[in-house]
Amino acid sequence: MSKYKISLAVIKRLPKYHRCLGELKSRGVRRISSGELSKIIGFSASQIRQDLSRFGEFGQQGYGYRVNALYSEVEKILGLDKKYSTIIIGAGNIGQAIAKYNDFGNYGYELKAIFDIKKDLIGKDINGFKVMDSNNLREFIQKEDIDIAYICTNAENAIDVFNELSEAGIKGILNFARVDLQNDDNVVIENVHLVENMFKLSYFLKNKN
Amino acid sequence: MSKYKISLAVIKRLPKYHRCLGELKSRGVRRISSGELSKIIGFSASQIRQDLSRFGEFGQQGYGYRVNALYSEVEKILGLDKKYSTIIIGAGNIGQAIAKYNDFGNYGYELKAIFDIKKDLIGKDINGFKVMDSNNLREFIQKEDIDIAYICTNAENAIDVFNELSEAGIKGILNFARVDLQNDDNVVIENVHLVENMFKLSYFLKNKN
Repeated sequence: MSKYKISLAVIKRLPKYHRCLGELKSRGVRRISSGELSKIIGFSASQIRQDLSRFGEFGQQGYGYRVNALYSEVEKILGLDKKYSTIIIGAGNIGQAIAKYNDFGNYGYELKAIFDIKKDLIGKDINGFKVMDSNNLREFIQKEDIDIAYICTNAENAIDVFNELSEAGIKGILNFARVDLQNDDNVVIENVHLVENMFKLSYFLKNKN
Repeated sequence: MSKYKISLAVIKRLPKYHRCLGELKSRGVRRISSGELSKIIGFSASQIRQDLSRFGEFGQQGYGYRVNALYSEVEKILGLDKKYSTIIIGAGNIGQAIAKYNDFGNYGYELKAIFDIKKDLIGKDINGFKVMDSNNLREFIQKEDIDIAYICTNAENAIDVFNELSEAGIKGILNFARVDLQNDDNVVIENVHLVENMFKLSYFLKNKN
């Protein structure tokens, strides 16, 4: 249960607070005003004061926010004080990239296995993991108590994979397949559509000037 | 110059319209009502009517929207009727994944080269591209008239790379480094922070129930 009632808009800003506060912390900055933070993070100072007031008392008028305490609180709110075990479904290009992407591991999302249905991929070594047969998916999730799955299959297979993961009791899914999967009662889903970031970019390119 | 004045909120929804209309089109659906589209896309019917009315007249009361015409218009608005030439800076895991990620190529973002500064990566073959020396970056961009660069370096190097790209006259950047790059007068930037999708997921996992 959450201590706070936080809107979706604030939740979307939290990772940015986390990143900026982490940078300030690593530079040894101990206090920062909402005005200074605004210049770095790009949100208005009043937005920042409003957002951060929801998490507790980390600032004092005229003295600014305590960077370390605020960083720890944002970490906690984001659930980064906990470790998660993860698996990858789909050992193609995206799956392989995720397996090699250190940032996830650095934040406590520990990769446990990679699965695929294709005979020519099963057994292949990817960054120290031997690709496992998707037929063993459900058993593995339950035995190893896996929290999160990355779906890295094509759009056609993603829905079947989702159903199987959900039945096996997975808690969260980061979906890279180009189809929107919807939360059900058991599973939390975050859809990541890389190519749509590119669409936004080309929209702005086309409409510049 | 744009025919339309479209808000950032609508622009963010456009890729989703593009994806859903593309699926409908490939299934041979010729007309769809705002109510039916709402069930597929997850926005309210009135939101859809409001959004789509900005792009022109694609619907007729009681007959629904013409799927093909609307899809083509959304494509045009997103700038997908044009081809873009792209390069990757940073031949590490993310750079290699982007090089192998077919979706970008399928939508007209054509990869022309991959660059790195590391001696042991220069000359390496990645998906048919020999990694080039970053010292030749500026010359290549200008000679080949490159539109878009993917920054796939670490956060420390990303800012130098950005400055060099901007001076060389690049038009757009899709930034995967874990630092927010800001638009300047010449370059349009889209920051992609993969790990922050995961943060959102773990927030929801932690605060479920």
